[in-house]
Amino acid sequence: MNTTTAVSTDSATHMSVGDAITAEQVTDMIASTGGNASREIADYALQLADDSLVLSQRLGWWISRAPEMEEDVALGNIALDVLGHARFLYTYAGSAWGKTEDELAYFRDEEDFRSCRLVEQPNGDFGHTIARQLIFSLYAGELYSRLSASTDPMLAAIADKAVKEVSYHIDHAIQWLLRLGLGTDESHRRIQAGLESMWPYKDELFTDTETIDRANEKSPGAIVRPSTLKETVDAHLATVIEKAGLSVPTVPAAADLGYARTGRFSEHRGYIITEMQSLARQHPGATW
Amino acid sequence: MNTTTAVSTDSATHMSVGDAITAEQVTDMIASTGGNASREIADYALQLADDSLVLSQRLGWWISRAPEMEEDVALGNIALDVLGHARFLYTYAGSAWGKTEDELAYFRDEEDFRSCRLVEQPNGDFGHTIARQLIFSLYAGELYSRLSASTDPMLAAIADKAVKEVSYHIDHAIQWLLRLGLGTDESHRRIQAGLESMWPYKDELFTDTETIDRANEKSPGAIVRPSTLKETVDAHLATVIEKAGLSVPTVPAAADLGYARTGRFSEHRGYIITEMQSLARQHPGATW
Repeated sequence: MNTTTAVSTDSATHMSVGDAITAEQVTDMIASTGGNASREIADYALQLADDSLVLSQRLGWWISRAPEMEEDVALGNIALDVLGHARFLYTYAGSAWGKTEDELAYFRDEEDFRSCRLVEQPNGDFGHTIARQLIFSLYAGELYSRLSASTDPMLAAIADKAVKEVSYHIDHAIQWLLRLGLGTDESHRRIQAGLESMWPYKDELFTDTETIDRANEKSPGAIVRPSTLKETVDAHLATVIEKAGLSVPTVPAAADLGYARTGRFSEHRGYIITEMQSLARQHPGATW
Repeated sequence: MNTTTAVSTDSATHMSVGDAITAEQVTDMIASTGGNASREIADYALQLADDSLVLSQRLGWWISRAPEMEEDVALGNIALDVLGHARFLYTYAGSAWGKTEDELAYFRDEEDFRSCRLVEQPNGDFGHTIARQLIFSLYAGELYSRLSASTDPMLAAIADKAVKEVSYHIDHAIQWLLRLGLGTDESHRRIQAGLESMWPYKDELFTDTETIDRANEKSPGAIVRPSTLKETVDAHLATVIEKAGLSVPTVPAAADLGYARTGRFSEHRGYIITEMQSLARQHPGATW
């Protein structure tokens, strides 16, 4: 917001220069990069967007509650970055069905969401949140880096924007991992516990769901198959975890990856989605 | 975060260029603008900071829960702006006692906070939140505008920075007031209800507490007496409320203004402060 120089009076949600992702910009990008998404690509974009939306809600909670005031601002900024990624992806996905980002975020039902269980995990203590950030950011960084070479120009443009922000999120998570892992006995114990607690949800990130298969068949080269990210991300995770004097967890994946991204076995998604949607749903279609 | 161009690796909480308020910057500002705060000025700065900290926590909740996704980002950005004001003010206040911003935010007790009840009010529905934003932002805009002419160079510098951001917050609140007030019957009813619900807490903002009297006696010209803001802010509120086709509430001030900013009669402060401080207090003095 420090970059605000002029205030528009024609929109209640006008954002400052620098932080802005306006719906108009996204629409313009769609027009300038080759038109509406196919249904298969839209399903793929939705899956990515759902992860980002849920994670942003979890992270936003930390504003004024982190262990340091400076950190409140850092996590708040990351939450807004990730929410921005969700908005871009929903807007692009919506072009396949003539739907808006709000319709996709607020008017799909719990079982239609394709978020992974990692982002749905409660914030826990700060160690849990950093462990979740570490795993998700390393995954997202590799994903967006590869997706920026997508044959789908809009996905490539979104990924190109996202990867720059995620590189900061990765740095943020790694610096905290080091600080906690190499800090006091207590901080070491807590970040290790955070890693153990989030680890079972890691491999769902790398599951090639039916959505992935369909999009890949329709538009080879447009998407990134999650399974192809696993080796790189796992290696990166192992390197930084060991550098922080911590142990790579050996706990197995939670539940059955055959149900990946279906919301089965997650007791959290329903509460998250319900609270997130309640206001928009009180007034369906209203412009208030 | 869109302005991020380089990522530091030497700090876990390094922020992007443009959004950054670093502790170093604040410390440098204190050094360059005339040294540490007096105790009386520090008490005054604390009172302002407490309002901002509590409000930022309330607003951060909205990330991913607003009626539109674009609005999630807007409220999140406002939350981070306001948190930034708190950080500046705590850092300056802390210079009087050799305390850090974190010590002042996380290690004072509930009864030592001097936040007003307006910012402690629950988010309610979106109409309540916008009503709270309208009243607080108009107050803060007038306050910081006047305080930027303070004879205390550090308060003047903080206010000068804050007033630019608050002018955007004012615009944001007014645009929503108009949109809701002039929108559907339902949106009109809800924003009017929001105004009625927040109105009883308005006048506490304009109360000259003992903290104000002491600071004013010690350093006349350094602070702004809240009572001197009331006429301008009330007039501005009346103008925009009527322009939105709404009625200026006539409900009286809540409880006894003799207890202004003491936390008496507020059932909310304890919960807010406890949750906010729990993590930092689990590890007092630890650097984790």
